[in-house]
Amino acid sequence: MNIPKTSFQRIVIVGGGFAGISLAKKLSKQEVQVVLLDKHNYHTFQPLLYQVSTGGLEPDSIAYPIRKILKDYPNFYFRLANVLEIDSVNKNLKTDIGYLKYDYLVLATGSTTNFFGNKEIEKNSMTMKTIPQSLNLRSLILENFEQALLTDSLDEQDALMNFVIVGAGPTGVELAGALAEIKKGILPKDYPDLDTRRAQINLIQAGDRVLKEMSREASDKAEDFLEKLGVNVWKNVRVTGYDGKNVSTNNTNISFETATLIWAAGVKGKTIKGMDGENYLTKSCRLRVNEYNQVKGCNDIFAVGDVACMESQDYPFGHPMMAQPAMQQGLHLGDNLLNMIEKKPLKPFIYKDKGSMATIGRNKAVVDLPRYKFQGVFAWFVWMFVHLYFLIGFRNRAVVFINWVYNYIRFDREARLIIRPYKKNRYIFKNY
Amino acid sequence: MNIPKTSFQRIVIVGGGFAGISLAKKLSKQEVQVVLLDKHNYHTFQPLLYQVSTGGLEPDSIAYPIRKILKDYPNFYFRLANVLEIDSVNKNLKTDIGYLKYDYLVLATGSTTNFFGNKEIEKNSMTMKTIPQSLNLRSLILENFEQALLTDSLDEQDALMNFVIVGAGPTGVELAGALAEIKKGILPKDYPDLDTRRAQINLIQAGDRVLKEMSREASDKAEDFLEKLGVNVWKNVRVTGYDGKNVSTNNTNISFETATLIWAAGVKGKTIKGMDGENYLTKSCRLRVNEYNQVKGCNDIFAVGDVACMESQDYPFGHPMMAQPAMQQGLHLGDNLLNMIEKKPLKPFIYKDKGSMATIGRNKAVVDLPRYKFQGVFAWFVWMFVHLYFLIGFRNRAVVFINWVYNYIRFDREARLIIRPYKKNRYIFKNY
Repeated sequence: MNIPKTSFQRIVIVGGGFAGISLAKKLSKQEVQVVLLDKHNYHTFQPLLYQVSTGGLEPDSIAYPIRKILKDYPNFYFRLANVLEIDSVNKNLKTDIGYLKYDYLVLATGSTTNFFGNKEIEKNSMTMKTIPQSLNLRSLILENFEQALLTDSLDEQDALMNFVIVGAGPTGVELAGALAEIKKGILPKDYPDLDTRRAQINLIQAGDRVLKEMSREASDKAEDFLEKLGVNVWKNVRVTGYDGKNVSTNNTNISFETATLIWAAGVKGKTIKGMDGENYLTKSCRLRVNEYNQVKGCNDIFAVGDVACMESQDYPFGHPMMAQPAMQQGLHLGDNLLNMIEKKPLKPFIYKDKGSMATIGRNKAVVDLPRYKFQGVFAWFVWMFVHLYFLIGFRNRAVVFINWVYNYIRFDREARLIIRPYKKNRYIFKNY
Repeated sequence: MNIPKTSFQRIVIVGGGFAGISLAKKLSKQEVQVVLLDKHNYHTFQPLLYQVSTGGLEPDSIAYPIRKILKDYPNFYFRLANVLEIDSVNKNLKTDIGYLKYDYLVLATGSTTNFFGNKEIEKNSMTMKTIPQSLNLRSLILENFEQALLTDSLDEQDALMNFVIVGAGPTGVELAGALAEIKKGILPKDYPDLDTRRAQINLIQAGDRVLKEMSREASDKAEDFLEKLGVNVWKNVRVTGYDGKNVSTNNTNISFETATLIWAAGVKGKTIKGMDGENYLTKSCRLRVNEYNQVKGCNDIFAVGDVACMESQDYPFGHPMMAQPAMQQGLHLGDNLLNMIEKKPLKPFIYKDKGSMATIGRNKAVVDLPRYKFQGVFAWFVWMFVHLYFLIGFRNRAVVFINWVYNYIRFDREARLIIRPYKKNRYIFKNY
């Protein structure tokens, strides 16, 4: 790879998510060479992906060009690359655009969908971890309704209009709420010649409550909101299979027929060959790191964000796989890397939990702050404010804000566009 | 196709572009059944596609859901369908979602890129007639620069950074201007480790002036603007071939080496089997229509917009293939169809030329109105105002407006995102 060799130490960051970007910004004015590698040329604001899938936002407004973030930083290099293998002995990375030596390596590769080994579900379900995946889901949702118009069979129509979401974490809950609002506000006008009242949103949760990472109060209120919106919430039900048409569960009395299963039931660390052995990884494929985000057993390899698992007394299974810990670890590691280069002692990372939140629909959100918990309209405004605040870029904020105001006033979502058709399930039904 | 049979006459419109939508709106409150078929579920505002390609706008803001346009109209049906064949004897359409009978058929299928039979160019060049095509071009432009970083060969870098645009109509001129602005304002910051001054924009025109449909004054000024922006304008040069690397022309002294040829040199009508014989078509594949937009030789089949060629004294080769004639014909045909159903006499279509315009870059546009011609800053504001005015939907206007203000103030285009990689030319260079 054409990166000039300088007298500075070279820090290679793999991944331009929350952790990688925070770290890069922290190192911006320092005397180190930073190379950031990502397979996309943009940073994705993942918390709003569900709004892209449901036509509320355009993808471009939750993505931000990585080169633009780095543009004023000297000694910074970005390369669009897929890292294939880490050779930790020779401190060398193999990528699809060539090899790259590093002095320090930071893995900020994030997470990917966890199907817990179920290949059938992996093959047939939709996911929502990247912008292209979210756009595929947007296309499929709309295609389902177009297809439902083409059949006289009510069973087929029902299956096409049945959305089964597995996993009631923030992604599942937010998506279920958005689909319920589309059902109520948009479908009857868009499809007057289809009985869209028959559309169903089923949210399935293996545990005994939704938003299980949040307070009991938030869980209960969120479930209440979901039910008011007409979402069927299933608890203590574990999905065991999906052949593209039938969803089976651990309860033989509960099954679903659907053209769309959205899998939001789990994530796992995104690892790279060379660091993927059992020595390194937890059960959810996260890299075990010490309190300095140093990968255990490595001196010059670090991991931050979702892919890092820092076990501590407060967080025996590592920090939650969310934006906050990623950003905090990225910033903290920036200081530690400089300490390391200057042979100063490292400082342990301490996570400051600023709280968590989820939105269910218009005027309906739940917020857990360290000292306060609240739900409803005010929580919803707080949720919007916080998300706008953390979006990168003035233009993105302005466009998202305009969309939200418009959608709120007009009960609408105008980005219901099938720009790239997604035909995965298009031909599963015969009578067509 | 599941469209109920009523006592109303059924008018089937094929295509939701400017002509089809204008006609549909005109028929909205009438006692007819209207079925609109399109292979996309959205209307595309084609005049701004070049801004999607160059990262200035998000695709979602120049697209508008067709169902939303039609939502308050009774007796209206939309189907996402590709029309495969017209059986004019039995008044029956064959589509990819089944058969459909019509009483009146209106072809508003628009136009497609015309390669004038050159298969090699068709295979290797980029076009910009649809949103997916424009997004592919956006991806390719950005991928080229990412790839240029990976080679030490200046020849390869030059070819990757050379943009050859064939055809200096509005599309070619506007794209060339936008690329020149990107070269000046964005590339040096985004690619500090690449000598982007070597990037070239070549605009090639077979005729002796750019914007040949406009006034001589506009052409001269546009050429002047282009040259000030650093675009190489080639006149009286005809591109004869492109193998994915080398562009040949009718002048053996002029050739180009490029990874990106954008073909904007011509369009032709988009015809459908059953109406594609020489009886019906002109040389540019447009359907010959009489002054009532009736396809010659057919009583109940009409054509409007780009696909229709109404030869008249003022327009011996039909009206220009642009939005204005399409909209006017759509509206006019609405009246005539109602006249026809009520057995009243039809009125001949008379085109009111409201002028034409093109933008070259910031503060640089040319406007020809029937009585006035002007160029420069004021023309640029007029251009923006007119385009915002004709965009459908408040949200789209607001988002486009925000983007334009932002881009103007910041000399920026933030949608430089490779959301779906386009790898057509990615591996043509060896040293990589």
